[in-house]
Amino acid sequence: MTVQILFAAPSEQWADYEAPLTDALKATGMDYALATDLPPGTVDYMVYAPDSAVQDFTPYTRLKAVLNLWAGVEKVVFNPTLTAPLTRMVDEEGLTQGMVEWVTGHVLRHHLGMDRHIVNPGNLWDHEAPPLAPERPVTILGMGALGKACARTLRHLGFPVTGWSRSEKRIANVNCVHGEAGLAQALRGAQILVLLLPETRETENILSGPALSLLERGAVVINPGRGPLIDDAALLAALDSGHISHATLDVFRVEPLPKDDPYWTHPKVTITPHVASETRPASAARVIAENIRRKEAGLPLMHLVDRLVGY
Amino acid sequence: MTVQILFAAPSEQWADYEAPLTDALKATGMDYALATDLPPGTVDYMVYAPDSAVQDFTPYTRLKAVLNLWAGVEKVVFNPTLTAPLTRMVDEEGLTQGMVEWVTGHVLRHHLGMDRHIVNPGNLWDHEAPPLAPERPVTILGMGALGKACARTLRHLGFPVTGWSRSEKRIANVNCVHGEAGLAQALRGAQILVLLLPETRETENILSGPALSLLERGAVVINPGRGPLIDDAALLAALDSGHISHATLDVFRVEPLPKDDPYWTHPKVTITPHVASETRPASAARVIAENIRRKEAGLPLMHLVDRLVGY
Repeated sequence: MTVQILFAAPSEQWADYEAPLTDALKATGMDYALATDLPPGTVDYMVYAPDSAVQDFTPYTRLKAVLNLWAGVEKVVFNPTLTAPLTRMVDEEGLTQGMVEWVTGHVLRHHLGMDRHIVNPGNLWDHEAPPLAPERPVTILGMGALGKACARTLRHLGFPVTGWSRSEKRIANVNCVHGEAGLAQALRGAQILVLLLPETRETENILSGPALSLLERGAVVINPGRGPLIDDAALLAALDSGHISHATLDVFRVEPLPKDDPYWTHPKVTITPHVASETRPASAARVIAENIRRKEAGLPLMHLVDRLVGY
Repeated sequence: MTVQILFAAPSEQWADYEAPLTDALKATGMDYALATDLPPGTVDYMVYAPDSAVQDFTPYTRLKAVLNLWAGVEKVVFNPTLTAPLTRMVDEEGLTQGMVEWVTGHVLRHHLGMDRHIVNPGNLWDHEAPPLAPERPVTILGMGALGKACARTLRHLGFPVTGWSRSEKRIANVNCVHGEAGLAQALRGAQILVLLLPETRETENILSGPALSLLERGAVVINPGRGPLIDDAALLAALDSGHISHATLDVFRVEPLPKDDPYWTHPKVTITPHVASETRPASAARVIAENIRRKEAGLPLMHLVDRLVGY
């Protein structure tokens, strides 16, 4: 029996997902059909985005599962017409891999001083080599799955890495410090600071004026974590004074970053539009294909949403 | 007895080397003095740059060795006043480490599409994530010490890496191809191409028009190897046609790159001024300190120059 899979998401998503889903489904060896239009009564699985045209699930009488493309399910979980199992997207592979690539890339960019070659209107042949990675101390605040993965790759490249976390951790070849006292230790003398903390009451504005002043003069701040980790006024002041030489920011208190935000026009700030880490079609497609394979094989679905609690 | 070490190089070099040499010499545990001015008759070792004010070695009657700061010794090796042993700089640690950092940084820069965020005059919040590294095939031409080290780090980051060399090689997790037939295989479909070949008659213009046409449309060329590896006219044509989306070049047929070279003003070219890999003060200082330690311990000097053949 051919497994009938409906892709129910806005058409621009289909452009991103058609090839990865096809590859991932083929790799399972299942006999399947994947389309953006199928008679409702024939659909076995629905790959779903909550902003899809499908809001009434009633005609889909044969649904074995709805596989949400988004991590968030708040816009579908309480839909009364949905009775089939619902899974949310947990794309660990894409999130972690993407974060390691983005963090490593921007750490190397600042370490190597790439910007002065990328933007070089005077065509200057400025032959000045940076120190090597072992001479460039990097500190990561946050030693969860993402922080640890970034630390591991930066160590592979030769950077001395200090990792700070609230509670004590031990990670091979990383100088792990923790707690209030450890925070000052982690910041003091760091030349590149990467923020990978979760957003909690304790971490809000953790990168304050006094915290920034502990970094080495000329240090770079890289924030792919959460916008509220930074006291924005303090960071702008530190950039203006020259104590911080550059900030590369991927996350903000308000996103998209408002047009009149001073970060946009600050010459020492690079803004990336929340791309450091997100669900990626290739790895998300593998998660979806694997979930369909599991269900067809009689195995429990991964990332099943509890309809009572709502996530 | 205190070992007397004279630093005989232009003063800007002293600024770069004073701290690293001091660190490296301290680490040997020797009793030493390091200065830019010492009575000639008291000097045991001379750390030397061929553009130093010292061109007459006659007054340095106690010299145990001259330790050249440069890899090249052509400007000192035939100096008839020099009778002490002469060593050249072989900074494997700095050269390889620097190359891995530069290549990895620029591969990630192009992979992540960083430039459109670094230079973003319209302040666009263009939320488009690149594919992950496993979807981005990278090919390295040249699988010597530098090529292999770069391949290893790019594999660590998840890139599929194809490595081409003239003769057959086997490197774990790298798709190794070789010879004439292997070259087409290596180029075909590559999205990022890194040139790390030596300059020989066979490798001159190896990146020709036909070779460029085998790369995937929109591919990026990164050349930290040697200038003559590229047929410059063919590369400029491929950039203009859009077949190649960008070239990041560190080496050129003539260096510094002449002011009127079309690469300077081409919008799809980034020029770095031969900084991808070079002798670095920190690691070079360790090589010098280790050589002095060895000589003092009665061990043979490393990287001793053969005064008859001239290198």
